Amino acid sequence: MRLIVQKYGGTSVGDTERIQNVAQRLIETQREDCQVVAIISAMAGVTDNLIKLAHAVSPHPTERELDILLATGEHAATALTAMAINARGGKAISLTGAEAGILTDRTHAKARIANISPRQIHELLADDYIVIVAGFQGQNAEGETTTLGRGGSDLTAIALAGALNADACQIFTDVDGVFTCDPRVVTEAKKLDEIAYDELLEMAGAGSKIMQSRAVEFAKKFGVQFEVRSSFKADTGTIAKEETTNMEDIVIRGVSIDRNQAKVTVDDVRDEPGVAGRIFSTIAAANIVVDMIVQSVSEHGTTDLSFTIHESDLDSARKLLEPVVKDVQAAGLITKKGVAKLSVVGIGMRSHSGVAARLFDCLGKAGINIQLISTSEIKIAVVIDGAEVERAAQLTHEEFGLATLIPAVGSMQPLG
Amino acid sequence: MRLIVQKYGGTSVGDTERIQNVAQRLIETQREDCQVVAIISAMAGVTDNLIKLAHAVSPHPTERELDILLATGEHAATALTAMAINARGGKAISLTGAEAGILTDRTHAKARIANISPRQIHELLADDYIVIVAGFQGQNAEGETTTLGRGGSDLTAIALAGALNADACQIFTDVDGVFTCDPRVVTEAKKLDEIAYDELLEMAGAGSKIMQSRAVEFAKKFGVQFEVRSSFKADTGTIAKEETTNMEDIVIRGVSIDRNQAKVTVDDVRDEPGVAGRIFSTIAAANIVVDMIVQSVSEHGTTDLSFTIHESDLDSARKLLEPVVKDVQAAGLITKKGVAKLSVVGIGMRSHSGVAARLFDCLGKAGINIQLISTSEIKIAVVIDGAEVERAAQLTHEEFGLATLIPAVGSMQPLG
Repeated sequence: MRLIVQKYGGTSVGDTERIQNVAQRLIETQREDCQVVAIISAMAGVTDNLIKLAHAVSPHPTERELDILLATGEHAATALTAMAINARGGKAISLTGAEAGILTDRTHAKARIANISPRQIHELLADDYIVIVAGFQGQNAEGETTTLGRGGSDLTAIALAGALNADACQIFTDVDGVFTCDPRVVTEAKKLDEIAYDELLEMAGAGSKIMQSRAVEFAKKFGVQFEVRSSFKADTGTIAKEETTNMEDIVIRGVSIDRNQAKVTVDDVRDEPGVAGRIFSTIAAANIVVDMIVQSVSEHGTTDLSFTIHESDLDSARKLLEPVVKDVQAAGLITKKGVAKLSVVGIGMRSHSGVAARLFDCLGKAGINIQLISTSEIKIAVVIDGAEVERAAQLTHEEFGLATLIPAVGSMQPLG
Repeated sequence: MRLIVQKYGGTSVGDTERIQNVAQRLIETQREDCQVVAIISAMAGVTDNLIKLAHAVSPHPTERELDILLATGEHAATALTAMAINARGGKAISLTGAEAGILTDRTHAKARIANISPRQIHELLADDYIVIVAGFQGQNAEGETTTLGRGGSDLTAIALAGALNADACQIFTDVDGVFTCDPRVVTEAKKLDEIAYDELLEMAGAGSKIMQSRAVEFAKKFGVQFEVRSSFKADTGTIAKEETTNMEDIVIRGVSIDRNQAKVTVDDVRDEPGVAGRIFSTIAAANIVVDMIVQSVSEHGTTDLSFTIHESDLDSARKLLEPVVKDVQAAGLITKKGVAKLSVVGIGMRSHSGVAARLFDCLGKAGINIQLISTSEIKIAVVIDGAEVERAAQLTHEEFGLATLIPAVGSMQPLG
């Protein structure tokens, strides 16, 4: 008998009708001669509402209490799902993260999984139960409820699939899978049949927020294959897995775009140890996330230091940096709103040379000016004018032949 | 140092502003050199909403899962209260019923408390924490969440006050205390300074739904004094306690009214064993609550059997009883809507004779017809026309001098 772990996000259990659909799907999966463990998120909107309540009573909610508060969202959703299954003649039971054996470190709000002891799950599966586990949570060694951070239910699913040695791990979500590009931007965008963990990680970091990065990192570390698929359709989705040799035949897996970015340049700054540190620690202290960082070649002992942040953080970043710029005797602070980031991602880059040149050439011919460039082993990212990002994505998608991407052999098979 | 247990109901924590008021009151109580344990109910409306969700996914929700679902309401409210205290510079921690050491039997939905091990509470109090306990819940020997039934937070408070040997147990609610009559009916109604457990039980059974009856029974059994008081005012409320000799000096403690009742009479029924059983088991099977039951003196082997139910249950009761009436060869079924019950309650009745006569005389002089009479040792209840119940309450209140009730000596002092 196969053991399947399925994860349903907040949208998939967003109202009682959808919970009943999930219940039906779980019953059907069990009837296909499977043991079924389902990880359930809080109903859409519930977590945000609880956070709002917390901030109404406290400017800085106690993290221990916030974890208890937020965990109730998943408790409620799992209990409702179990009820719905039982009402349809199935046999289900709900477990908290603690009952499912998920032990974490002592950190609240963003705990790390330390150990999983799924003894009770195995017993319940042996008794023919569909086991419904509250996502996003565990308990620490003191028995206190902890949560795994936003999107933590993905991590629960992948970690449990690993610990249970499941035959498949299916992440049901409100998208059909991972696409070569956002279909709203590029109408020819294709759903990928498979993707390497590293590619998914780079795409997640590049604005395609399909999965929590920590969940993908965990899957990579422990080699847990999983499938991202739609909870509203029966179609197969995208399988994330270890890269294989034939995956390298495709140079670029996808194009991601990140809108509403701002570019900040500290002009003519001394190229000395500690200067960059001063600048970025100032930004980090205000919880502003810095994305791309580029430093130009040093000439005459000075350099230009550029980085991108979200547009909405620009005003506070300016205020914070102006005194620092004076202090380190830089020539000035140049900022630019309305820029966007375009990234091409693919493990094929490693074995195919000239990808960067092809990208720059493609954009150059279209008259799209590149303002910043940053590369990793499997990603090339460029900052361009925000008004041109859709056209740039369409051209890039075409240039690398993503619309006619040939699926790798065997990727349509079920996992395991 | 005194140990105070305070219980706040759903209305008292109905929104974030009220939660902050409760937090402030708990901090102030601790500053008065007290150790403080607070029992918190779910925010007003939350439990009803969860029940609605459950019934939307299941006609008969699994009781185990329903308990998990409902318990989240109290978890959330306790976490929010603890956060609010911490935000105001206090030191608080929230506990689930299980963490507070409340062990129940295996019954779901209406579990009975089997044992309380408040070790963790004592430790936290010794560390200067204000301990916030989720009301209405415990866990069974298997570690599953159980709930204590509607109003179960009162029971949690009284049981914990008993187990902790608290110096005072204060039930904060949206009324100022227990009154001689509903002040909306009798403007001269006075707040009672003290009341005997038995009187409170009889008044609770007579439409004054201030406290869950099981909580009062528990308090009586274990001799836990408690005070019912307003969470919106600083005034002292009503202390419920073992009866004392001087409490008997007051003949009647209060007048309760119960509107929207219906009277059902099974006419001329054989006075044989088993007949009443058939009638009432039919009613009970439909979950209809029967209040007063009166059987007239048997003549010629037949009798009249009358009882009251809530008006809204009358139609279904009629349908259920008509075949039974035929079956037991009774003469017929007479029903009457729009009646009301008026009860006078007081332990003083035991030592003062003539109370019934005084009540009947008072109502008779006012031309108010008594349709049914039922008495207990400390209560006399009559069924009258619903349109006359307010006038009857005012007259009764005056007849027994309740507006000028002299408070018993010492009852204004704090408990303990």
